[in-house]
Amino acid sequence: MQEIRIELTKSPKQKPAAQSQLGFGQLFTDHMYIMDYHEGQGWHDPRIVPYQPISLEPSAMVFHYAQEMFEGLKAYRTEEGRVLMFRPDRNIARAENSCKRLCIPPVPADDFMNAMKTLVNLERDWIPTEPGTSLYVRPFIIATDPHLGVHPSHSYQFIIILSPSGAYYASGLNPVKIWIEDDYVRAVRGGIGEAKAGGNYAASLKAQEKSDAEGYAQVLWLDGVERKYIEEVGSMNIFFKIAGKVVTPALNGSILPGVTRATCLELCRAWGLEVEERRVSVDELVAAARDGSLEECWGSGTAAVISPVGVLRYGDEVMEIAGGGIGPLSQKLYDTVTGIQTGKLEDSFGWTVEIK
Amino acid sequence: MQEIRIELTKSPKQKPAAQSQLGFGQLFTDHMYIMDYHEGQGWHDPRIVPYQPISLEPSAMVFHYAQEMFEGLKAYRTEEGRVLMFRPDRNIARAENSCKRLCIPPVPADDFMNAMKTLVNLERDWIPTEPGTSLYVRPFIIATDPHLGVHPSHSYQFIIILSPSGAYYASGLNPVKIWIEDDYVRAVRGGIGEAKAGGNYAASLKAQEKSDAEGYAQVLWLDGVERKYIEEVGSMNIFFKIAGKVVTPALNGSILPGVTRATCLELCRAWGLEVEERRVSVDELVAAARDGSLEECWGSGTAAVISPVGVLRYGDEVMEIAGGGIGPLSQKLYDTVTGIQTGKLEDSFGWTVEIK
Repeated sequence: MQEIRIELTKSPKQKPAAQSQLGFGQLFTDHMYIMDYHEGQGWHDPRIVPYQPISLEPSAMVFHYAQEMFEGLKAYRTEEGRVLMFRPDRNIARAENSCKRLCIPPVPADDFMNAMKTLVNLERDWIPTEPGTSLYVRPFIIATDPHLGVHPSHSYQFIIILSPSGAYYASGLNPVKIWIEDDYVRAVRGGIGEAKAGGNYAASLKAQEKSDAEGYAQVLWLDGVERKYIEEVGSMNIFFKIAGKVVTPALNGSILPGVTRATCLELCRAWGLEVEERRVSVDELVAAARDGSLEECWGSGTAAVISPVGVLRYGDEVMEIAGGGIGPLSQKLYDTVTGIQTGKLEDSFGWTVEIK
Repeated sequence: MQEIRIELTKSPKQKPAAQSQLGFGQLFTDHMYIMDYHEGQGWHDPRIVPYQPISLEPSAMVFHYAQEMFEGLKAYRTEEGRVLMFRPDRNIARAENSCKRLCIPPVPADDFMNAMKTLVNLERDWIPTEPGTSLYVRPFIIATDPHLGVHPSHSYQFIIILSPSGAYYASGLNPVKIWIEDDYVRAVRGGIGEAKAGGNYAASLKAQEKSDAEGYAQVLWLDGVERKYIEEVGSMNIFFKIAGKVVTPALNGSILPGVTRATCLELCRAWGLEVEERRVSVDELVAAARDGSLEECWGSGTAAVISPVGVLRYGDEVMEIAGGGIGPLSQKLYDTVTGIQTGKLEDSFGWTVEIK
């Protein structure tokens, strides 16, 4: 593990007074972490510096060929003032897979972990404390070669920035309406759907625009081949409770392997629920909604943690779920996961990592 | 059309002496073009400034969600010293489509054209003159909002950089070997395959690495749904001559609509050849190669113009085409297109635009 050089800011920013107005990913802390990669030299020169612009040649590969990946996770302040991160090892492992798919040299896991711990610890006074707030941690890698040939870059930057973020649900947990998209496609098997690659998000914007216009919060993607199997929501994985069983699409190469998804599966199994990871067709959902066996639906993701789905729309079919409200299992998952994340509930799974 | 403000460099670079050593996209001229976009204000402040790094907030959307697109075309110096661009209107029209797919506000066509003409004219002394060389023009747009929410950016930069580039075939036109990829997928219908989006190129790197390792020059992609229909090559469209007919995959939404592709089609039709734009299965190619009716194969693209394919490999099937050499139609297309581009042949189609 390489030692991190630290250069402290000489002009600290004013911290926000009203935590309720933080929003998401709008405001950043005083410092950022950077590590460089050059072929032959490997990852080197890890440093924490004052938060500042990135300067790149106009020919830098990230601007042209989107050789870039990111991760997202959160740090929380407990009532006693301890700082907890939630399953950061999972994000590091996923980042390694994203890097491999995009021909980016992975950051050594111990340097990655040390980077997040050191930066979050340095910025611990930035972590908001009101219910639902957190410090969002955004590690990302960009390809910096100043050449236009299409091939993997020989140089990269690994950067971590931190953003104090407000409660996802300003007025308490709320069910959302989700649009099932049958025209635009996000990813296909053999593609980069399971990587946290910038290109997947660029590809998603058009359908999101369409669902916004229809008054829906997010898009639920179908598979790219048959356009009939459920994949994932814009920024979440998706779960259903059908006739008492917890069902979620199996990881098939085009679905992002969410950390909150894994957490939901482990909790439901620990609670003795029957859990199925398998293909779920949209026809099955429509039939289950019609016969009343579609009991609950929720999204899982770092931003919202658990997002109850009150309405699913597919073409002209509008499926109201749990009476358009919050199902009991969705509520229990939300309470449990956020309880563990914020130190209110005992962490019998060993998921939290304390930052000291 | 907005007037371009011009700030000339005070320290011009040394121009390269040996044009044969230029390579592709490695060296850039003295100036670059920039125009800004802000929501409510539109595209504004077009300017030409000394070539310099781009400075962006670490949270700029282009680094995280790859909301970015580019174009590529070339300017040539004729023997009499005139400067010609080849079908720039086509690139401008395609850029508009890419922008729409990626929720980027398109640059007005007259500003786009004026930008390229003004910049190329200013840098005309950078255009190399040896056979096969050219000035590569790279317009691109990047999303600059300093926010991590996943939605279309509200601010962008449109930038044009110029790169004097060497002959693609240093020792004359040469046939290449192409690897037909049946595992990784580049794009799928409903996706962003027909847009010149950075994410498509990031998605292509892994398969290119595989074909490199096997000693092949580029990857030929199959469709993402059935993985049996021919789509395009890494940086080219693909053509076949089968039993006397010119055949190329029809534009289906996941194939890039190449300018050189359109040029090949128009020339072949003008020459009275039978031309088919349709689905082409890999099975059809294998059968045609076996029975001897696969007479020629070539790629078409801005970089190589026409790239004869001597070998196609699909699994264990190695198809040698035109005896592994250059077919007569491939050669005729190369000679005609490059002849028109460089002003050696009369441009009866009105494809070239002189820069004065």
